[in-house]
Amino acid sequence: MKEWIALNMTPGVGPRAAARLLERFGSAEGVYGALRSELERLRLRPEAVESIALRDRHEEAARELERVRALEGADLLVLDDGAYPQLLREIADPPITLYVRGAWAECLEAPCLGVVGSRRCSTYGQNVASMLSRDLASRGVTVVSGLARGIDAAAHRGALEAGGRTVAVLGTGLDEIYPRDHRKLAEEILERGGALVTQFPLGTPPVAENFPYRNRIISGLSLGVLVVEAAENSGSLITARLAMEQNREVFAVPGNITSRNSFGTNYLIKGAGAKLVQQWQDVASEFPAEVAARMLPPETKAVSAGTPQKAPEPSDLSDDERSLLALLSPDEPEHIDGLAEKSGLDVSMLSALLLGLEMRDVVRQLPGRCFVRKL
Amino acid sequence: MKEWIALNMTPGVGPRAAARLLERFGSAEGVYGALRSELERLRLRPEAVESIALRDRHEEAARELERVRALEGADLLVLDDGAYPQLLREIADPPITLYVRGAWAECLEAPCLGVVGSRRCSTYGQNVASMLSRDLASRGVTVVSGLARGIDAAAHRGALEAGGRTVAVLGTGLDEIYPRDHRKLAEEILERGGALVTQFPLGTPPVAENFPYRNRIISGLSLGVLVVEAAENSGSLITARLAMEQNREVFAVPGNITSRNSFGTNYLIKGAGAKLVQQWQDVASEFPAEVAARMLPPETKAVSAGTPQKAPEPSDLSDDERSLLALLSPDEPEHIDGLAEKSGLDVSMLSALLLGLEMRDVVRQLPGRCFVRKL
Repeated sequence: MKEWIALNMTPGVGPRAAARLLERFGSAEGVYGALRSELERLRLRPEAVESIALRDRHEEAARELERVRALEGADLLVLDDGAYPQLLREIADPPITLYVRGAWAECLEAPCLGVVGSRRCSTYGQNVASMLSRDLASRGVTVVSGLARGIDAAAHRGALEAGGRTVAVLGTGLDEIYPRDHRKLAEEILERGGALVTQFPLGTPPVAENFPYRNRIISGLSLGVLVVEAAENSGSLITARLAMEQNREVFAVPGNITSRNSFGTNYLIKGAGAKLVQQWQDVASEFPAEVAARMLPPETKAVSAGTPQKAPEPSDLSDDERSLLALLSPDEPEHIDGLAEKSGLDVSMLSALLLGLEMRDVVRQLPGRCFVRKL
Repeated sequence: MKEWIALNMTPGVGPRAAARLLERFGSAEGVYGALRSELERLRLRPEAVESIALRDRHEEAARELERVRALEGADLLVLDDGAYPQLLREIADPPITLYVRGAWAECLEAPCLGVVGSRRCSTYGQNVASMLSRDLASRGVTVVSGLARGIDAAAHRGALEAGGRTVAVLGTGLDEIYPRDHRKLAEEILERGGALVTQFPLGTPPVAENFPYRNRIISGLSLGVLVVEAAENSGSLITARLAMEQNREVFAVPGNITSRNSFGTNYLIKGAGAKLVQQWQDVASEFPAEVAARMLPPETKAVSAGTPQKAPEPSDLSDDERSLLALLSPDEPEHIDGLAEKSGLDVSMLSALLLGLEMRDVVRQLPGRCFVRKL
């Protein structure tokens, strides 16, 4: 374990160099057992080769571990640790150590969603981040974000309001909260069943180049990433791109095309295959089936007789909609022309009524202008 | 021709009955030559059978044609007329007569786009309808809409402002402008190279059940339909559905998920395959290749030497972006790992820079994390 921590603290060993070392030597122990010539062949920076060969970080690593464990509820996970988060381990260049604090195990066991967006967001973005985080957290989803101003803070706060779980991934050391005026928010997260996570050693100050690594952990811990607002060329778009490269689902909230802050999210939907999100269900329905099933109302109810029941009629149907619904069966698709014959309505009217029923989720359209009633 | 007009004026013969009659008898002349028993077998309404058998609309049809031709610039097209719009003829149940007025031939020769949306729209919707219509009309697209309040009016006006062409499809007779306070707008459309179109006989008043037929003509005349704003269960969503059934491209403008008026457009993008539109180029790029090529700046320039030239560098590139761009070729895709080696940048940073270049349209991502420079 000390070797992992030492390796993580070695100057010139970032995630890519670490990945290369591990690919070659299998473990931190293996790295420290390697010959200097072997290290040199991996094209590491000279100071990294030097440091590894001299094992000059080992004492510092021992002290680091002590200091982490002295913080209440904090711990240090390393890559070959069983407790290391499974989803994060699967990304291309996982951090080799993970500093955690708070109820991290419970938080990361639940389905996690990254919620990210602009620091300088609009009121709309703030409201939506908070609303969706609240809706999802209250249904058991852990909201993972970056503790930044704007959307990040709104997402953490939304989850807390719902009494749900939230994880703040830092671009600094566990003991250096950034921005400083979010120290209270960080405390609240810890007090209320949330967690802080970072790959950076204690005392690491906020440095611009560390934040992309932070973003990759947000998506790496999560089943998907929801981008709430993002301007052109913004960090949130990079997080979205990284999430796609990690094979994570990417979700985006659309917004007015006249708003700079929605340019990036609209772009993700238009050009990058992000799923458009209008409400929390749009996120839940893309989660793995067993997670989605727990969150969403069952589409099919198994009843004692063994036959599926029709869904109850929404109470706000018009007479026309009600009689049209009565013509539809859950088993036999009806062609729109047949429905026109049976109902006496013309195709334009029928289209209107069917669309209304579809939007209320009681009817489904099949290819070839056929329709069935939903179960 | 008189037969077509008479058939269109026959009580109980709407587009569906007309389509059935034409399928059976081939032409209006054929319909009037049919035996009463044959007509009865088509399950027409009794008054329709009666009227056709007695040819009791023929005189009225002759008068109608005279009256239409007495209106300045007005004419009447019938389904087997060479001048009848080709795209409209291809839909499932085209109107058998089309009353036209103004520069209809020029308008319908150009690529047409239906622009529709809520009557009670927001300021956002109005601005966007006008902006996109202006942008497209100034590039030779005819903006087709329904002369209604709200989005329709903004679309017509946007096209007129750009000095472009616009067609108003009516749900009433050519001589009955609805709503009445749009009579001035209708006049302006005619004066400035636009046109009015309807399937309904002179004197037809505004009746709710006629408007879905009007909507089907808007999409039928057009290559695609752009929905700017639409509430849940709105008429514009029906137009979108009809457009899809007619195999027309459907476009939608996203909006804030907190706006009722954007619920429908967001829904179309999320669930119905509508293309998200942020700017006019998003519409143009989905048009048939030859139309798109005329509107959009060429992606490849043929130069005298016969080799394609690289697109000029945008002037606002950072140094990092510029040196990254220099590493990319238009012919040989570069893998992101190779780019990392060559540039000395790590993958997270590279992702950020590449995304910025992609959004400025100078780089394209290929499958498997490979990138090429655009021509």
